[in-house]
Amino acid sequence: MAENDSLSGFLASAVDAAKRAGEIIRKGFYTTKHVEHKGQVDLVTETDKACENLIFNHLKELYPTHKFIGEETTAACGATELTDEHTWIVDPLDGTTNFVHGFPFVCVSIGLTIEKIPVVGVVYNPILDELFTGIRGQGAFLNGKPIKASSKSELISSLLATEAGTKRDQVSVDACTRRINRLLFKVRSLRMSGSCAMNLCGVACGRLDICFELGFGGPWDVAGGAVIVREAGGEIFDPDGSDFDITSQRVGASNPYLKEALVKALQESD
Amino acid sequence: MAENDSLSGFLASAVDAAKRAGEIIRKGFYTTKHVEHKGQVDLVTETDKACENLIFNHLKELYPTHKFIGEETTAACGATELTDEHTWIVDPLDGTTNFVHGFPFVCVSIGLTIEKIPVVGVVYNPILDELFTGIRGQGAFLNGKPIKASSKSELISSLLATEAGTKRDQVSVDACTRRINRLLFKVRSLRMSGSCAMNLCGVACGRLDICFELGFGGPWDVAGGAVIVREAGGEIFDPDGSDFDITSQRVGASNPYLKEALVKALQESD
Repeated sequence: MAENDSLSGFLASAVDAAKRAGEIIRKGFYTTKHVEHKGQVDLVTETDKACENLIFNHLKELYPTHKFIGEETTAACGATELTDEHTWIVDPLDGTTNFVHGFPFVCVSIGLTIEKIPVVGVVYNPILDELFTGIRGQGAFLNGKPIKASSKSELISSLLATEAGTKRDQVSVDACTRRINRLLFKVRSLRMSGSCAMNLCGVACGRLDICFELGFGGPWDVAGGAVIVREAGGEIFDPDGSDFDITSQRVGASNPYLKEALVKALQESD
Repeated sequence: MAENDSLSGFLASAVDAAKRAGEIIRKGFYTTKHVEHKGQVDLVTETDKACENLIFNHLKELYPTHKFIGEETTAACGATELTDEHTWIVDPLDGTTNFVHGFPFVCVSIGLTIEKIPVVGVVYNPILDELFTGIRGQGAFLNGKPIKASSKSELISSLLATEAGTKRDQVSVDACTRRINRLLFKVRSLRMSGSCAMNLCGVACGRLDICFELGFGGPWDVAGGAVIVREAGGEIFDPDGSDFDITSQRVGASNPYLKEALVKALQESD
């Protein structure tokens, strides 16, 4: 099949793949799951693997020269270095714990990088039927309607999302709850919904004002959401205020006004 | 209008009121809100007030001899003592912060107590279109389908929900994050979605295994959910392990197997 190298063509292919994977997720959502443990609290299911295979097969057939990085493939075969080539970065099921428990914040996340820059993003929650899409320079959308980040300019009025993550050593948990403690005095409230990609899309569509996460799984958690946040007018950055690095397992996101305040609040929480 | 004093008649009236209020909530969900501050981080909107008026008017017309306790009326006029009489306890919009921000965990909660025992419960999330219902002795339902609490018997495999609440004094916040710290070593993961009533219904339908909340607003947060949890086979109790008291502003809920483990874990977190 001839390669369609326009960004909108790539997006259409990614949406198609995400919707097909979403169908598998939706079917599995209410059934008993066969669960494997990656670590103490990390979970992987047959559905993760089936969705990654489906998405990779679909996109590889369309774009045989592209590179692919996926959560499950990485878990099975080790890390693939991100290069300047066209690279699809896929989390077939973000929010696996939610999926196992039937908590409705689950999604497929697909991002395409060119020269290491995320240029196309798709995040699809098949349970809530929310399809977030973004193309670099062409805006961000929820179910086809343009979205934009919120306009709140005061941290104390903001709704923050973060996650407890999967690490359960004392140092990590203490650092997590110390940050939460300090931040609760500075924001309106805190949400933890169990999906990094959904949190990024929450900032993009303004239902959250800020979010951050430290030590998540890999670039697949953020590759799709990064484009969507930026195209919705939001900021995406390292939580220490430096430039966002898709490979760093650290992400902060905000509306256009709260980046500096969040970075400062996080510095004061360390 | 003649009073229909069967529990199923009461439920039908409550569902009708909840759906009408849900329509108002749905219409307001994406619009800019006029927000008043009850405290530093508590919010009340025109929608809360309009929904409470609608629900009270609807039920008072049907049941003129019944008593009524509502969040907004209580805020405006002071507390009404719970008596043995038929009493409707209403939170017209649980998750007001979510509503203001457009985060989709919002609901109407309506409970009916007779001799202080919750006997009918309705929790309706108009954004996710989830209608939870329960009648004492007659089961619990989500959109008409029977639901039951999960069957997980190990705390380390459980998904816990709690909330940061609205208090922002140092003692309350320190106690909250200390509990979270200790519990993160004992459960699979933690969700904070901003609605006490939705958390109870999450336990009832098995998408959460356990939840607790200390120091929430009042009986309106739990009156509807309490029936639904019990009728789904779950347990509802005081977080210290004693009997649930609807007026205590303290609640714990679990599937049939995890009450003691949660109570013990909370004792060890103090």
